[in-house]
Amino acid sequence: MFSPIEWHIAANGPVVRMLDQTRLPHEVVWVDCPDHQTVAKGIKDLWVRGAPAIGIAAAMGLALGARAIKAGSYDDFVRQLKPIHDTLAATRPTAVNLFWALNRMNTVVRIHKDRTVEEIKERLIQEARAVHEEDIRRNVAMGGHGARLIHAGDTILTHCNTGALATGGHGTALGVIFSAWESGKRIKVLVDETRPVLQGSRLTMWELQQNKIPATLITDSMAGAFMKKGGIRLCLVGADRIAANGDTANKIGTYSVAVLARAHKIPFYVAAPTSTIDFSIAHGDQIPIEERNPDEVTNVFGKVRIAPANVEVANPAFDVTPAKYITGIITEQGIFKPGELKRKLGGKK
Amino acid sequence: MFSPIEWHIAANGPVVRMLDQTRLPHEVVWVDCPDHQTVAKGIKDLWVRGAPAIGIAAAMGLALGARAIKAGSYDDFVRQLKPIHDTLAATRPTAVNLFWALNRMNTVVRIHKDRTVEEIKERLIQEARAVHEEDIRRNVAMGGHGARLIHAGDTILTHCNTGALATGGHGTALGVIFSAWESGKRIKVLVDETRPVLQGSRLTMWELQQNKIPATLITDSMAGAFMKKGGIRLCLVGADRIAANGDTANKIGTYSVAVLARAHKIPFYVAAPTSTIDFSIAHGDQIPIEERNPDEVTNVFGKVRIAPANVEVANPAFDVTPAKYITGIITEQGIFKPGELKRKLGGKK
Repeated sequence: MFSPIEWHIAANGPVVRMLDQTRLPHEVVWVDCPDHQTVAKGIKDLWVRGAPAIGIAAAMGLALGARAIKAGSYDDFVRQLKPIHDTLAATRPTAVNLFWALNRMNTVVRIHKDRTVEEIKERLIQEARAVHEEDIRRNVAMGGHGARLIHAGDTILTHCNTGALATGGHGTALGVIFSAWESGKRIKVLVDETRPVLQGSRLTMWELQQNKIPATLITDSMAGAFMKKGGIRLCLVGADRIAANGDTANKIGTYSVAVLARAHKIPFYVAAPTSTIDFSIAHGDQIPIEERNPDEVTNVFGKVRIAPANVEVANPAFDVTPAKYITGIITEQGIFKPGELKRKLGGKK
Repeated sequence: MFSPIEWHIAANGPVVRMLDQTRLPHEVVWVDCPDHQTVAKGIKDLWVRGAPAIGIAAAMGLALGARAIKAGSYDDFVRQLKPIHDTLAATRPTAVNLFWALNRMNTVVRIHKDRTVEEIKERLIQEARAVHEEDIRRNVAMGGHGARLIHAGDTILTHCNTGALATGGHGTALGVIFSAWESGKRIKVLVDETRPVLQGSRLTMWELQQNKIPATLITDSMAGAFMKKGGIRLCLVGADRIAANGDTANKIGTYSVAVLARAHKIPFYVAAPTSTIDFSIAHGDQIPIEERNPDEVTNVFGKVRIAPANVEVANPAFDVTPAKYITGIITEQGIFKPGELKRKLGGKK
């Protein structure tokens, strides 16, 4: 199973090894992060992105940071762990998986408070690896559920990147497409390029090409015209945070796709592990939206400037799609209507 | 009045001087086209673009080509003019102004068949300059009509470039914004970058900056999120061809803006001279849509590749917005509902 992030034992000790996705599709460069600061930088600078992958990276980053602590007591350890946690938590505000994973790690620290510091450090490494492995298992399960929605001959529109690159492996929305393809269904994928960071053209097209799945790249502005033309059977996207009522924060542009899908009577599905659902938030208006550097808009791929100097730019990284536009949410536990989340999954969390 | 194209008398005789818009906003480079082939290349390669400007360029290109003909008789002249006309007509299929302007030129040739060839050549030059001057007058009139829709404090969303750069001067949709601004209304403009060729970020932002009008650049994918957030009072776009029923072909992505505007109850106006209305076409499905080079999508600004090698790409340059999404069409003769075009303007053409 291809994974963009791994806990790797290097000559000088463990590192978090991540694929620098900002350099795809032209270069496949792996970066070994020797400390939690480098992991935090990797999350912030989008070497690793995608809500589930961010969660895994944060858990591994915390385990790495914890390992380097020299502490004489549990309290000393906890005190030194705090700034490490805070550094990782401050990287990106929208993806709830980041906080979910860090909370899991904190729980490990708490429930093992009677063990030695060295034992707790070891448990944290185990937990981070478990977060990774469980993510892959969840994605494969999600793919199985979602693939039932896809039929041979379907054309599926997707936005951003939600494949192996965005997760521990296999992917969420793109994982559903992979599962359908692996089960023998001949399908086609229409890929929004996903400005400004171009996760669609750079990453999703790369993953589909690696898997030899027929795909056509379009600009985000073409989605409506292709829906009108007919032939798109399904829209499939991921999520960075889902509120209790089903409102879904995802990559900027997702909301437009959802409104357009509704206008063309095309089913619109979100695929996300249940760890992406934030039952502490009643509706989408409460989800914090990250505003990123304007240079992402004005300097494409960090290389070519496409606007005059000194222009004002907006760059919200995400938008919120109200539940009413979402046909269903595909999780590892099955497919749910947005309105069912709280009743069917809320109690288990 | 700033114009991106002019009939210029150079040392060696007349040339069509055009601003190479592919190099904006970084370089302001004027190209002198000494013959109709260079003018045709300029249209095809987007040195000059925008339906009205394309019409002017084609008329000037024909006058330039006609001037170089050595013909002993009217019939000989007409025979030699035919391939010049065809070269210019084959540059871009969607903008009807191209064919409208060439038809005007053909009419000049026909009605002056009893004059000498040299006299006809002179009349063609006069006609091309008239096409240019009339366009400016029409745009200023259109701006006056449209500005009535705009109030101080409004935020207006626009797509693509419809300013002086897209016309003989002043602009169509952006011309309306200029007229409102010049009349003292403090407004703000939200500019879609307009992938793939980035007319919004490169050209519209440049024109707004030159005119010191407050503007914010967004990616096309952000339009829906900003409409949802509230505050956009009006959407204003141009047109490349309007069918008799009001269906409007315009830059790819316009249709998505229109559907999103409807979903948010935001008025959506098209601004275009009546020369953009094609009464020979009943509805939008009959408008030919130009499919352009995939490299425009995969190589941003012709410089940086943003997708893997050998990917399939779609690149329709335009889409068609059905009349039902259009609140009104702003022309030099006033503002009309799409359904009124035929009755109120159809007889005059």
